[in-house]
Amino acid sequence: MTASQSSIKDVKAYMEGLGRAARAASVEIARASTAAKNLALTETARVIEAEAAALAAANARDLDAATSLDAAARDRLSLTPARIAAMAQGLREMAALPDPVGAITDLARRPSGIQVGRMRVPLGVVGIIYESRPNVTADAAGLCLKSGNAVILRGGSEALHSNQAIAACIARGLAAAGLPAAAVQVVETADRAAVGALLQSPEHVDVIVPRGGKSLIERVTAEARVPVIKHLDGVCHVYLDAEADPAKAEKVAFNAKCQRYGTCNTMETLLVHAAVASSLLPPLFARYRAAGVELRGCAATRALDAAVTPAMEDDWYAEYLAPILAVRVVSSLDEAMQHIRQYGSQHTDAIITENYSHAMRFLREVDSSSVMVNASTRFADGFEYGLGAEIGISTDKFHARGPVGLEGLTSQKWIVLGDGEVRG
Amino acid sequence: MTASQSSIKDVKAYMEGLGRAARAASVEIARASTAAKNLALTETARVIEAEAAALAAANARDLDAATSLDAAARDRLSLTPARIAAMAQGLREMAALPDPVGAITDLARRPSGIQVGRMRVPLGVVGIIYESRPNVTADAAGLCLKSGNAVILRGGSEALHSNQAIAACIARGLAAAGLPAAAVQVVETADRAAVGALLQSPEHVDVIVPRGGKSLIERVTAEARVPVIKHLDGVCHVYLDAEADPAKAEKVAFNAKCQRYGTCNTMETLLVHAAVASSLLPPLFARYRAAGVELRGCAATRALDAAVTPAMEDDWYAEYLAPILAVRVVSSLDEAMQHIRQYGSQHTDAIITENYSHAMRFLREVDSSSVMVNASTRFADGFEYGLGAEIGISTDKFHARGPVGLEGLTSQKWIVLGDGEVRG
Repeated sequence: MTASQSSIKDVKAYMEGLGRAARAASVEIARASTAAKNLALTETARVIEAEAAALAAANARDLDAATSLDAAARDRLSLTPARIAAMAQGLREMAALPDPVGAITDLARRPSGIQVGRMRVPLGVVGIIYESRPNVTADAAGLCLKSGNAVILRGGSEALHSNQAIAACIARGLAAAGLPAAAVQVVETADRAAVGALLQSPEHVDVIVPRGGKSLIERVTAEARVPVIKHLDGVCHVYLDAEADPAKAEKVAFNAKCQRYGTCNTMETLLVHAAVASSLLPPLFARYRAAGVELRGCAATRALDAAVTPAMEDDWYAEYLAPILAVRVVSSLDEAMQHIRQYGSQHTDAIITENYSHAMRFLREVDSSSVMVNASTRFADGFEYGLGAEIGISTDKFHARGPVGLEGLTSQKWIVLGDGEVRG
Repeated sequence: MTASQSSIKDVKAYMEGLGRAARAASVEIARASTAAKNLALTETARVIEAEAAALAAANARDLDAATSLDAAARDRLSLTPARIAAMAQGLREMAALPDPVGAITDLARRPSGIQVGRMRVPLGVVGIIYESRPNVTADAAGLCLKSGNAVILRGGSEALHSNQAIAACIARGLAAAGLPAAAVQVVETADRAAVGALLQSPEHVDVIVPRGGKSLIERVTAEARVPVIKHLDGVCHVYLDAEADPAKAEKVAFNAKCQRYGTCNTMETLLVHAAVASSLLPPLFARYRAAGVELRGCAATRALDAAVTPAMEDDWYAEYLAPILAVRVVSSLDEAMQHIRQYGSQHTDAIITENYSHAMRFLREVDSSSVMVNASTRFADGFEYGLGAEIGISTDKFHARGPVGLEGLTSQKWIVLGDGEVRG
């Protein structure tokens, strides 16, 4: 612990101290062995389990003080026994993942005689800004540690005691592995100026990952002077092509909407080719209604089913995160892709088709972080993609797109292996 | 041509128009075939050669007006017959490079049955901000076109007529290939507000590449609200290890300084292990002096050679770009790496050693965009690395490091190939 909350008067100087310590620790953690990093992860997991009662007590202090939070926010703030166990399990899974750092690729000899390749290296110092979900503290710290980065964690102020208690477990894990304590630092002040300091210190922070609601992301994006890996909306589409297999179409379109309503990769708009709307939509609509999904449609959709309410322009932009679905009939693949371009959020979009050329065009031309053929948008997820845990999902195009795992927390430098070569 | 210079009164609206047109063109250029893009490049090359006289005439207008420029700046502004031929040749070489767009990698089946992989895709719209070097117009436009991006080019105001003349050649190349004219747009106003508009329009521009001196880069970095691929200093080091091969040490240390003085990958500081300083430095110093290089050294260096002038603290930070070399004797590999960490610019650093473990530690631990063993820092270059032309050299860690070629102008999206799979 660097300071107690009440003693931090000069937030700027305090954050400057964290930043310098993180930069120094990043040098050590970057060259740490895989074994040392894995030991820190598994030892932290062990301590978290051993200290479950202490974690619950710290969390109870936060919950007692958080009288103004609504039920959903209190739930996110709660460290239940299951969540404590999941934190430990998550850290053990990270220990089992391959270490991305130091991997050399594309090493090839050039006409000059030198061998040129690329080595994967940590980004340096990662800043994580998140809301009052204390389990993010362990998850994010673990991913940064495994990828060889130092991290500064700034969680929601309501979770301060919980985060400090988790940080104490991580500190014991780092110490057991002989790694520097400053590799993982938790900001111990609720002062919002700490966020500003983190966002505007490119000398101390190499990348910011905000995790939370849209207003947090927008604030971070507007203020940041360092690169941001960010996730905005998930307005995801499934397009049922004229040559869709009806069974796959029904199965995927139902799953993409109904498997979970509140996730960013849930379908929000269903697009259907006019040639198959009258055959595909009625059975699907029956299933949506049985599941309690409200349907809002274009004029052509309503001509097929008068009980569908009219979709307004805003519906095409909506990320409902709720049992509501917008439905639009289109006259071509191009019209479907134009709709996705205009109203989508470049998150995840799928086509259902047996037509090879349509599948290939959709894959190539839809400019989203995940583009799918004959699969549910709900698969857009770090675990489903085989990345292990994800630090976030990027809807940007720069650096990383889609689920960001360990690799997204690294970069590649060039290496040159020579034998005394010089340039002529 | 979208407007003549004198008619542009509302720069904000003008830039908004360019941005919207670029965004629309980016959709078409992203899906353009390799053949069409290559035809646009080779046809532009042909037109540039055919219109060499017109290009020279436009350039003469710029040179006539640029009375306030010094000789070096006038030289950079000049479109000599050799430079015109080189622009055409550069475009033909880009046509011959592999197309990065659409390449699918790492496609693997997951336990759920879906196949997950990554597809390389353009970034979208690239903004290039550069000084009065008109040949950059053709080079940068070619690289953006080949990588499937639309581009907005904002060159130095002294080169306006030259840039417009080159843009007219590119427009003919695009037209011959059936590609949209707005894929390559040149900003036709000298108003500096145009730069600000480009830097602060994330809705129209996906990445900015500034090319020019340090003040330009610093201004762009300070003002940009979009990602920047930037190159700051090149304070490059060669470290002669205690186990350096003497012949390789002399050859590389001489070449790294003397092959060219004004380039960013030129060595500025030579570090030498104390155990070999007295044997390696005297013959090297003799060669440097014969080449006219001024030597500035630490106390230990001066103890070996009293004619070396004392190096001040500022010398260790200096990017001389001139026949001046700072020399420091260090007592260990760790001290050498600590010096590089403290004073270097994370550009390019080399170790000369026959010791395997020292080579491996230097490769892993030195956090620079290019790290070399037994090779001259002068190799840090897109052509030497086999990338073909480079859009710039990045000293950042995010997205791309070191020489940035076609791949650095792309990103990877996730693709999922399914057969009706849904998430359970």
